[in-house]
Amino acid sequence: MTLSIGIIGTGAIGKEHMRRLNHTLKGARVVAASDVGLEQAQAAIDEVGIEARAYASGHDVINAAEVDAVVVTSWGPTHEEFVLAAIEAGKPVFCEKPLATTAEGCLRIVEAEIASGRALVQVGFMRRFDWAYRQLKALLDEGGIGQPLIAKCAHRNAQANFSGDAGLIDSCVHEFDVMRWLLEDDYVSAQVIQPRVSSLVEGDLQDPSLIILRTRKGMVITIESFLNCQYGYDIRCELVGESGVADLPQPASVPLRHSARDSLGVITHWKDRFIDAFDVEFQEWVDATAKGERHGPTAWDGYVAAVTSDACVKARHSQQVEPIALAERPAFYR
Amino acid sequence: MTLSIGIIGTGAIGKEHMRRLNHTLKGARVVAASDVGLEQAQAAIDEVGIEARAYASGHDVINAAEVDAVVVTSWGPTHEEFVLAAIEAGKPVFCEKPLATTAEGCLRIVEAEIASGRALVQVGFMRRFDWAYRQLKALLDEGGIGQPLIAKCAHRNAQANFSGDAGLIDSCVHEFDVMRWLLEDDYVSAQVIQPRVSSLVEGDLQDPSLIILRTRKGMVITIESFLNCQYGYDIRCELVGESGVADLPQPASVPLRHSARDSLGVITHWKDRFIDAFDVEFQEWVDATAKGERHGPTAWDGYVAAVTSDACVKARHSQQVEPIALAERPAFYR
Amino acid sequence: MTLSIGIIGTGAIGKEHMRRLNHTLKGARVVAASDVGLEQAQAAIDEVGIEARAYASGHDVINAAEVDAVVVTSWGPTHEEFVLAAIEAGKPVFCEKPLATTAEGCLRIVEAEIASGRALVQVGFMRRFDWAYRQLKALLDEGGIGQPLIAKCAHRNAQANFSGDAGLIDSCVHEFDVMRWLLEDDYVSAQVIQPRVSSLVEGDLQDPSLIILRTRKGMVITIESFLNCQYGYDIRCELVGESGVADLPQPASVPLRHSARDSLGVITHWKDRFIDAFDVEFQEWVDATAKGERHGPTAWDGYVAAVTSDACVKARHSQQVEPIALAERPAFYR
Amino acid sequence: MTLSIGIIGTGAIGKEHMRRLNHTLKGARVVAASDVGLEQAQAAIDEVGIEARAYASGHDVINAAEVDAVVVTSWGPTHEEFVLAAIEAGKPVFCEKPLATTAEGCLRIVEAEIASGRALVQVGFMRRFDWAYRQLKALLDEGGIGQPLIAKCAHRNAQANFSGDAGLIDSCVHEFDVMRWLLEDDYVSAQVIQPRVSSLVEGDLQDPSLIILRTRKGMVITIESFLNCQYGYDIRCELVGESGVADLPQPASVPLRHSARDSLGVITHWKDRFIDAFDVEFQEWVDATAKGERHGPTAWDGYVAAVTSDACVKARHSQQVEPIALAERPAFYR
Repeated sequence: MTLSIGIIGTGAIGKEHMRRLNHTLKGARVVAASDVGLEQAQAAIDEVGIEARAYASGHDVINAAEVDAVVVTSWGPTHEEFVLAAIEAGKPVFCEKPLATTAEGCLRIVEAEIASGRALVQVGFMRRFDWAYRQLKALLDEGGIGQPLIAKCAHRNAQANFSGDAGLIDSCVHEFDVMRWLLEDDYVSAQVIQPRVSSLVEGDLQDPSLIILRTRKGMVITIESFLNCQYGYDIRCELVGESGVADLPQPASVPLRHSARDSLGVITHWKDRFIDAFDVEFQEWVDATAKGERHGPTAWDGYVAAVTSDACVKARHSQQVEPIALAERPAFYR
Repeated sequence: MTLSIGIIGTGAIGKEHMRRLNHTLKGARVVAASDVGLEQAQAAIDEVGIEARAYASGHDVINAAEVDAVVVTSWGPTHEEFVLAAIEAGKPVFCEKPLATTAEGCLRIVEAEIASGRALVQVGFMRRFDWAYRQLKALLDEGGIGQPLIAKCAHRNAQANFSGDAGLIDSCVHEFDVMRWLLEDDYVSAQVIQPRVSSLVEGDLQDPSLIILRTRKGMVITIESFLNCQYGYDIRCELVGESGVADLPQPASVPLRHSARDSLGVITHWKDRFIDAFDVEFQEWVDATAKGERHGPTAWDGYVAAVTSDACVKARHSQQVEPIALAERPAFYR
Repeated sequence: MTLSIGIIGTGAIGKEHMRRLNHTLKGARVVAASDVGLEQAQAAIDEVGIEARAYASGHDVINAAEVDAVVVTSWGPTHEEFVLAAIEAGKPVFCEKPLATTAEGCLRIVEAEIASGRALVQVGFMRRFDWAYRQLKALLDEGGIGQPLIAKCAHRNAQANFSGDAGLIDSCVHEFDVMRWLLEDDYVSAQVIQPRVSSLVEGDLQDPSLIILRTRKGMVITIESFLNCQYGYDIRCELVGESGVADLPQPASVPLRHSARDSLGVITHWKDRFIDAFDVEFQEWVDATAKGERHGPTAWDGYVAAVTSDACVKARHSQQVEPIALAERPAFYR
Repeated sequence: MTLSIGIIGTGAIGKEHMRRLNHTLKGARVVAASDVGLEQAQAAIDEVGIEARAYASGHDVINAAEVDAVVVTSWGPTHEEFVLAAIEAGKPVFCEKPLATTAEGCLRIVEAEIASGRALVQVGFMRRFDWAYRQLKALLDEGGIGQPLIAKCAHRNAQANFSGDAGLIDSCVHEFDVMRWLLEDDYVSAQVIQPRVSSLVEGDLQDPSLIILRTRKGMVITIESFLNCQYGYDIRCELVGESGVADLPQPASVPLRHSARDSLGVITHWKDRFIDAFDVEFQEWVDATAKGERHGPTAWDGYVAAVTSDACVKARHSQQVEPIALAERPAFYR
């Protein structure tokens, strides 16, 4: 069975998913697409070169009879309405982060999904599908380092022009989700420490930052967010356990000895680091959806990420340890 | 357009290709399969769980109207007849190594393909499609180490029960092909040096061995073949160039500090090392074949590999430097 | 000129210094030694096999005419009196940490040294003499990563039987000193975060711990102290700078591929990690002392380490950020 | 007891040994020195700043009553006469390579030493004292990889202006000695293979070269000699054993992530690589000589190195496998 998919939002990422679903993955086909206007959607369809129908709005895509499932990759503030509409229409929906722009919005989606009685929503936290994180989780789960006690993450980007809190949260939200999944734990508090700002940072962005999360099981997780590290796109995670220490593997590159250096390459753009994860993420979503299942990050995970982000923003401004208070996880979400 | 494929030979590798083509890759579908008998073919079809027709012989698969292209993965000595028959039938054919069991057999295929006027034959030398070799070639081609002068390869397998020359040749034929492709060069001579035999080797297998190839452009290539190295499946290639040295990247694994060791995992089975290469190899063959093109290893490459293998066997027994005499490469093969 | 040295305290470390000074280093000779009693001192002299005179007390060693300089390696609480006595006698004194058991005691030594008008006191913070820290400092000082912003240290020991705060402070005091030297900066606050305790820790020791230091120049330094990490003795330091990231080099070992692992050895005992640093530390102290100079860690550095330790102990119990308040550094200490 | 040493030859290396013996090592003191003329010797003594007497010739140094042992570091062709004279005078002699400029010359020294009945001669093959080779030998000796079967060495130098065979032999003679010591084996044949010459090589030097040595126990050793590799001074040795593979450790440097590269430094000059080995080599020679012993490379080892060098030069010109024929090792040399 080929899953007929509707894409809501045909910007750069939307078009990549269109290519991915039609040209790379199996078992799916994009049949409909929408953007802010019919012309934009049609232009995207033509550019990607697929056979699909352009619609004037995401709601039309959701309601189109030929659409089995939808992918929401539109402007962030529109995610909530489209996901709610998809739940209303009883159609599986993959929503790129953020699930909603507020924790309350995420909670509304959670409640709607529970009310529908069907697991319809998956959030686009692709790191759970990354080969490196999966290798690390496998080793952890088989007891390779014993009980994990401390995790030290780093999320480094060469250059980025953010302001305010958006940069910190937009990047670290991926750490918020993947670390919960990796450690099978939940956060209880957040603290944000600001070192001196790098002189190579433009504007008033506070960069780098150090986030400290505490978990229910007592772990301490530090996350260094450095949006302007200059040297490349570098994702790190060191797990300190009771009997050993394990690191997130790095992508392989050609060891080169030249000009008195012995070096490996460092990836420079985030897409190059996670391109495979997106393919795996979508193929697994397509396969599960075709069977009426949902195995990836849930609306609850999206809610937790939002609450964690809020706590970090609050902690950054208060310079206090801020609690991460979550309602009890509904039985609906395992 | 979906390429309809016939599989000749439904052993372990044949069934993997059947799964690969139907379940993982795009643009192809297995419609026919044969083995030594109809029952074997049908059993394989049932086991893999695809919709395809079982045939009593490879020739029936080749001639079946619904078959666009064939994959030959039967017993080695049958490859030549099936490839010739596919050329005769004007159908693209992917042939797992060996193209033929003798250099003369390969030459017959070359002549038949040239006579047909169509590029129909691709040989299954998958390392050209391996991410690590491709990274290494890209660096070499952009001048990363200047002109290459010396290459040192190692092909190590944990344990293998071979006798005679089969082990040496069956494994190193992959080095023979990939190094020609990597260096864009041809071999002119072979020498084989035998160290003392490892005491952990059973039977009368001479293992390890050291092959030395000289090339037209003056390079020296050493290939260590160690079928019983005990510790894992390990493929190495060090390129020494005029301005630097580059190594074949190793597959990534989780760095683990435990019990006074800081270690990475070593792959233990060859399939785990090259599983992605097979997918890339077949996807590219399917894509090219659908467009009437052939971009992978040619029948000429299969012929050269056979001549090189023969020279190595001869050199092993003569303990002399043996010439690798090739006819001039036909214009048909670029 | 050969520096005639008196050793105060002939326990394990004292005897090592006796061997080191007489047998390994140049320009010094142990001429006197004391311990809690004459017999212990004589036994040590006999065991090490040197020509030196045993004394009944450290004060006798300090006052002995033939002694040019003293090394204090006695029981911690006795350090202050011996160092003060050496300053009184106008003799250079090398004091193993702690300089004194309290910050006030350190301050008394500082004041006495300033009053004497002579740079006489060096504290045994050997990491400043470690090849790895020196390589890292050289790279940092030549601008290799730009301005440092964040440092992440780890001090891991395989197994240790400590209780209370001693373990944390006794090990991390080395980080406190070397990071000030490395970064040419001073601390302004300390915070201590306690993850869940490792189940492999005996007694009531809180292990591991995470110390967070803020510096005057705005850096954030995290120090993971893990006294029972099981896997080895492992010292780490990652410096995150404006333009790059540099790591403390690891001691070299033989890369070994065996049993499906590709591994390096991890040192298991702290002495094996820093044995060279002690040699360099003492040779440089002997050379400087012979010229009437002092270049190593000063009494002020000892005082700062003590104040930092106190703040960490306080922070561990208060679970608050504790200020590290230092008086202005006297001109006497550069 | 302080060993009184006479230095024969006060060029760059001679002066380094003078500094080393007087200022760094223990138990020795340079008391005499000679060069081609009295003035040169005196100038060196003044430059190094030691108290020693200048002599007009090496023979005067050897015969000087105050000299206990001599170090020969004069022009290569003069080594034989000085070593013979030292044996004649019954004085221990450390001779920098080459022991003599011909194998016959080395044999004359061997015979003279045997006749003297005293182990007096040590040859300056410093790699046996290198920390990396010692680590590798320790692992090999404790069975870390089982019986060694193949060794792959590389001796790479950034740039060198040699001609003829001198470059190949002068550098590889160190491999010839250290590999015999490492593997406790002897050579039986040599072959030299010449790849195309690097275009960055000046003059008529054939560079790089590949030497293949066979050993009595059946090992195969390849030695890549590349005098103009451009990128640095890089010494490599991979030991392939029956159960594993071990590599010669590399000197540690600061891992640096900068400008999209993750790199370590490569040493650029041979002195920086082996500076510690010279210190260990000389300290152990001084210590042994003071006890009337000799533990380092012997005159026999010097002879074997010369025979091996000759065979390599012959093999390079004949392009044949040349035998390395040695007389039976005299009982005098263990």
